[in-house]
Amino acid sequence: MHVALAGGIGAARFLRGLVRVVPPAEVTAVVNVGDDLERHGLHVSPDLDSITYWLAGVIHPQQQWGRADESFVVASELERFGEGRWFSLGDRDLATHVFRTKRLREGAPLSVVTAEIARAFALDVTLLPATDDPVATRVTTVDGRDLHFQEYWVGERAAPDVAAVRLDGARAAAPAPGVLEAIAGATSLLLCPSNPVVSIGTILAVPGVREALLASPAPVVGVSPIVGGEVVRGMADKLLPTVGAEVSALGVARLYADLLDGWVIDVRDAALAPRIEAELGLRVVVTDTMMDDVEVATELARTALSLCRGDRAA
Amino acid sequence: MHVALAGGIGAARFLRGLVRVVPPAEVTAVVNVGDDLERHGLHVSPDLDSITYWLAGVIHPQQQWGRADESFVVASELERFGEGRWFSLGDRDLATHVFRTKRLREGAPLSVVTAEIARAFALDVTLLPATDDPVATRVTTVDGRDLHFQEYWVGERAAPDVAAVRLDGARAAAPAPGVLEAIAGATSLLLCPSNPVVSIGTILAVPGVREALLASPAPVVGVSPIVGGEVVRGMADKLLPTVGAEVSALGVARLYADLLDGWVIDVRDAALAPRIEAELGLRVVVTDTMMDDVEVATELARTALSLCRGDRAA
Repeated sequence: MHVALAGGIGAARFLRGLVRVVPPAEVTAVVNVGDDLERHGLHVSPDLDSITYWLAGVIHPQQQWGRADESFVVASELERFGEGRWFSLGDRDLATHVFRTKRLREGAPLSVVTAEIARAFALDVTLLPATDDPVATRVTTVDGRDLHFQEYWVGERAAPDVAAVRLDGARAAAPAPGVLEAIAGATSLLLCPSNPVVSIGTILAVPGVREALLASPAPVVGVSPIVGGEVVRGMADKLLPTVGAEVSALGVARLYADLLDGWVIDVRDAALAPRIEAELGLRVVVTDTMMDDVEVATELARTALSLCRGDRAA
Repeated sequence: MHVALAGGIGAARFLRGLVRVVPPAEVTAVVNVGDDLERHGLHVSPDLDSITYWLAGVIHPQQQWGRADESFVVASELERFGEGRWFSLGDRDLATHVFRTKRLREGAPLSVVTAEIARAFALDVTLLPATDDPVATRVTTVDGRDLHFQEYWVGERAAPDVAAVRLDGARAAAPAPGVLEAIAGATSLLLCPSNPVVSIGTILAVPGVREALLASPAPVVGVSPIVGGEVVRGMADKLLPTVGAEVSALGVARLYADLLDGWVIDVRDAALAPRIEAELGLRVVVTDTMMDDVEVATELARTALSLCRGDRAA
């Protein structure tokens, strides 16, 4: 079983490659839920949904989030009621949130509802939220404001400089059923090319997850989300400094150093490989990590799995 | 102030006429909520919504319920999750239910949310749910099944014969804030041409409402929902026998006899007028009650108000 720690879009694109290399039924993704938010009274799980839509082949191809062939009738009508559109939900997408919210109100844990949604999209991959407990990634800006991650990320387009990021509720949160078991029983553990602070970091902030990774006999291999000193997607460059990390494939590797056995970096960062190997004692593989099409994603997944098997030349 | 007890479509069409005769701000509608139901975890108030959409001019002109220019993207997507379409909600309509549900979950009473929705549709009429408390109209079929009214009405298209109708929760329900005050302070009290059993009957089943109507010094005038021994709309003919009432303008007048001062019947029932007057001691006015256009509705409202003022020749 291959277990991947996953954020949103970057992880989704990587997983789309992974399921072409190994049977989807042998893949479990442990997904960040720190970004989850309530919109119009509905529970939205942006990372779970991005992965679901990508794997189901219904993702909006240009946006890379939300549904293809999307309309915004409900969101437009909701403006009448003073409901803002800073985080706009499409009609097709909304059906997922309506169903999720209904089931949560009925008392189903998020992990159960997540499995139901995955089944509704005919996914063979197992998707697990990092936790069933309420957690929320909060951002403290340099100018002293405390914002929900999505208010910062979508509402303010990540413009303000960030002083600190934290996962509210983390201390009282437990890993969702199956998370620790999947990690303990894995043959390979993968850290997707997701935001190290607000995607992978928030999964690792759930008590027990980091310990399970350290205790697992399976190799841990990550894919750098930073290419050529820049983020591939998103705005990790605003967030890495808050945890004292340099915005580079080396900086992120340092963050994960206690966990990693191997690290996959982009060809543009080839020059960093010897330094990462020497400083952190990791096996590093250099390859194309820009997953502009599914073939690159597939090759990248193959490379990461080869590295898990101890095979440096992928 | 003119206070009308109201169900859904028939009431909405009548109120649309009424607000052309008197200033909308002088009209309060006390609306049945026994038909309210939860769909996809969302609180739907069919009668409140029908009245809101009719008065706002956004009603679907052919269906006579739901929104004009409607699409069904969310409902179609919800099928993926096993959510049936027996009671299909359009996308524009859904925005109302999403907002209502959000506000109810936040702890706002239905009467407050109803006022917010009316404001969002720029209505000057005051809409009050009969009660803020949870009530549900249930139908016992002759073959012994116990169904929510909407399961019977929409789900089974009112096909089964009905043994009994009751309003669950009625005993513990209180009139919504403003209902008793509006009735007590009214200059005219109107019973809209709505279903006597499951629309007007369920409003009267809320403890205190019937007593308030009896105690009010204002005249009570009703409009018969039965024309020529047939229901104008809906399937009241299936329900009137459950309360021992004949399906006629006389049968409904008998049901309301203790409340009524005047009764408006259709020209097709003119022959019944002397009998109703003699048997029930009511003033009866005969006019066109088939509100196929707003002009007829306006004249009908004018006639009802004239009758309230004691003027028989409208």
